[in-house]
Amino acid sequence: MTGTAGGTGDTRQRLIDVAVELFTRHSFAGTSLQMIADELGFTKAAIYHHFRTREQLLDAVVEPILGRLRDVIDEAEQLRGVHARADHMLAGFADLAVHNPVVSVLAADPAVAEMLRRDREWDELIERQMRLLSDVDPGPSGHVKAAVVLAGIAGASGPTFVNIDRDALRAHLVETGRRALGLRIRNPRR
Amino acid sequence: MTGTAGGTGDTRQRLIDVAVELFTRHSFAGTSLQMIADELGFTKAAIYHHFRTREQLLDAVVEPILGRLRDVIDEAEQLRGVHARADHMLAGFADLAVHNPVVSVLAADPAVAEMLRRDREWDELIERQMRLLSDVDPGPSGHVKAAVVLAGIAGASGPTFVNIDRDALRAHLVETGRRALGLRIRNPRR
Repeated sequence: MTGTAGGTGDTRQRLIDVAVELFTRHSFAGTSLQMIADELGFTKAAIYHHFRTREQLLDAVVEPILGRLRDVIDEAEQLRGVHARADHMLAGFADLAVHNPVVSVLAADPAVAEMLRRDREWDELIERQMRLLSDVDPGPSGHVKAAVVLAGIAGASGPTFVNIDRDALRAHLVETGRRALGLRIRNPRR
Repeated sequence: MTGTAGGTGDTRQRLIDVAVELFTRHSFAGTSLQMIADELGFTKAAIYHHFRTREQLLDAVVEPILGRLRDVIDEAEQLRGVHARADHMLAGFADLAVHNPVVSVLAADPAVAEMLRRDREWDELIERQMRLLSDVDPGPSGHVKAAVVLAGIAGASGPTFVNIDRDALRAHLVETGRRALGLRIRNPRR
């Protein structure tokens, strides 16, 4: 470690990048701090300087994604009309998932959910994004559609489609979501 | 252990049931044989009598589900017409997921995929079910739709909707999948 702010920041970011890679390959619970240290050729002490636990590292991976999700939800809730709100939520979530393929393995991982649920905001965000999508068709049917769309976009944005251009993938995900939710959009976002 | 075939069979099934419960709560990699032993009040030796490794236990959990999936794929491939084939695959997969909520946590788990991929049949089954769903709309768009539908149904069949009647949930999942895939079905299965 260089001891300079720049060097420390770089090391922190490298740790986060390797964590994302190993979570994607082995799941969160299947990745130890030791494995991350080995992958980088670091000692565990060097990692402890930045993250005391695997949970702190997960927090650092998830925090920017949650921040963006929060923004998308806030923006969507400002719009008029259930279809426009659902469409903004859908497009924002697809964008998030396409640019953060780690969402595909974290979204369905109960070990991750268990940890995130300790934070009260997590449940609230999930509830708000579900409401934005399911208000188009109130009742159980709309809830199931919303859950299929969220889980489907998260799952399909993972390693399966590494060879498709990100913008094309995003457009296909949004189009599939619109069909599934039965959205009527006058001027769809591009 | 009683030593009788019946007693041994019961113990084996109890181990599988508890494994499903703990995989659903903590993920596959987050569940140790020790945790399963503790949950049942067994010694680890009693578990070793049935399963030498966690991987063998995962195999026992997954095998009946894969068997049913294989049947659905075989049946679908016998049908005439891409829409009828996709619809049979869709309905069969929804049925499977609704009756095996563990699919929701196993389907998106890279630690599970890593293990299942050692078996050549696994990749072949995934490819065949993807083809059945994506042939309705050949090209990248159809592939993305198929992936969203499979991941979405798997994800939405988990603990989120424990309070919805299984038949109603299955019907909503199939309806959502039909919309997403753009299926035209003359006489939809009920």
